[in-house]
Amino acid sequence: MDLRSMEIRYDGGKGDIGGPFIGTLHWDAAIEGPRPGVLVAPAFRGRAQFEEQRAQELAALGYVGFAIDYYGQGWTTTDPAEAHAAKDRLDAERAMLAARMVVALEALKAQELVDAERTAAIGYCFGGKAVLDLAREGVEIGGVVSFHGILDRAASAPDVKIPAEVLVLHGWDDPLAKPESVLAFGQEMTERGARWQVHAYGHTGHAFTNPAATPGAQPGFGFDAKATARSWRAMVAFMEEIFR
Amino acid sequence: MDLRSMEIRYDGGKGDIGGPFIGTLHWDAAIEGPRPGVLVAPAFRGRAQFEEQRAQELAALGYVGFAIDYYGQGWTTTDPAEAHAAKDRLDAERAMLAARMVVALEALKAQELVDAERTAAIGYCFGGKAVLDLAREGVEIGGVVSFHGILDRAASAPDVKIPAEVLVLHGWDDPLAKPESVLAFGQEMTERGARWQVHAYGHTGHAFTNPAATPGAQPGFGFDAKATARSWRAMVAFMEEIFR
Repeated sequence: MDLRSMEIRYDGGKGDIGGPFIGTLHWDAAIEGPRPGVLVAPAFRGRAQFEEQRAQELAALGYVGFAIDYYGQGWTTTDPAEAHAAKDRLDAERAMLAARMVVALEALKAQELVDAERTAAIGYCFGGKAVLDLAREGVEIGGVVSFHGILDRAASAPDVKIPAEVLVLHGWDDPLAKPESVLAFGQEMTERGARWQVHAYGHTGHAFTNPAATPGAQPGFGFDAKATARSWRAMVAFMEEIFR
Repeated sequence: MDLRSMEIRYDGGKGDIGGPFIGTLHWDAAIEGPRPGVLVAPAFRGRAQFEEQRAQELAALGYVGFAIDYYGQGWTTTDPAEAHAAKDRLDAERAMLAARMVVALEALKAQELVDAERTAAIGYCFGGKAVLDLAREGVEIGGVVSFHGILDRAASAPDVKIPAEVLVLHGWDDPLAKPESVLAFGQEMTERGARWQVHAYGHTGHAFTNPAATPGAQPGFGFDAKATARSWRAMVAFMEEIFR
């Protein structure tokens, strides 16, 4: 294994959607030729070490991992209040979020190392919402995986069929995605023709993959090592299925 | 690998609960010493070739597989009307169903080949309900797995904590376990302290593991090869987790 990484600046050239965006490509240079590519949409603080690690782990699995940027200019913060403000602004413009996800996917497909016919996206928290919104655009992508993502459909989402496989890895006690929203999501995905799955974990809250989310610090939030391992394993199996 | 099987007659000796019961034990004679034991609760037609195969596959995984009988005297039928009648009678006596599951678990634990500290149960359709009812008794068992099982709690279920891990593999379009019952189940399991998961599969109906359930023959029912493979893989990962 010979893991490498490289910064990628990308832009959709489709008017002002807030670019350029700055992502990081991770791959195993010991593998020859194009391979599946997996985009990693960050949690609400923007692309940071956490997402780089996930993209690197995807590279170690034999894929190209692409940690992306949905804020523009590679913006990131460690300040929760700033992060909430940035996320709320983008969340109020879901069509913009979707457009930024689409250009990220295009940038991934344009990489020489990537087999453009075999792509997927994973995302965490607000990044989970971002990859679901990408699927909702009806784009050609093999699959999307949301880790403790937010499930509500935007009013701006187009009225299209969803060709992607969709996997939602969900903590049942997540206050940002309550049981009722799981029902609504199931109905939406069924109507849109998505081949979907939800794995719901009991006694598990929001941000369960985030070691910095101290359990008990905020009700319904908290790191859970078991759910983290389960969800990653489920993602690995999902990728093996869609890239077979 | 040296797969063997043996008929086991068992009874709880606890008054008339309809025994004796007749199950089949499957194991790999190439493995030495006690190993985890997994009970297989049949679908509503009673223990048949399908369940024997699952128990044999569990034996091939290194466990003892025990295909059980919840009707008594090894009763089984290929006639759907007869099967429905038998199932409905037992379903009307959920405390009896639970008692029969408890004696089956005791019979499994009593086997020399079985490490009584490491047991689990899986079940299909009405057998899924049966293994959930077993967990609801608060018995000492590592985990239970329901494949397209029915999720409603019986009024007769005791008011106890559930120490088992619980995994429900569920077709979202199953008319016998609607989305609302998934919500009720999540709430019940959470209140009872069970470490639970539900894997919901979109566009998937009841009996999805049953090759004899021709898709389209009955709305909301149907074999699904992909869901079958996914659910078995999820079960294998679950067993590896609880028997680690």
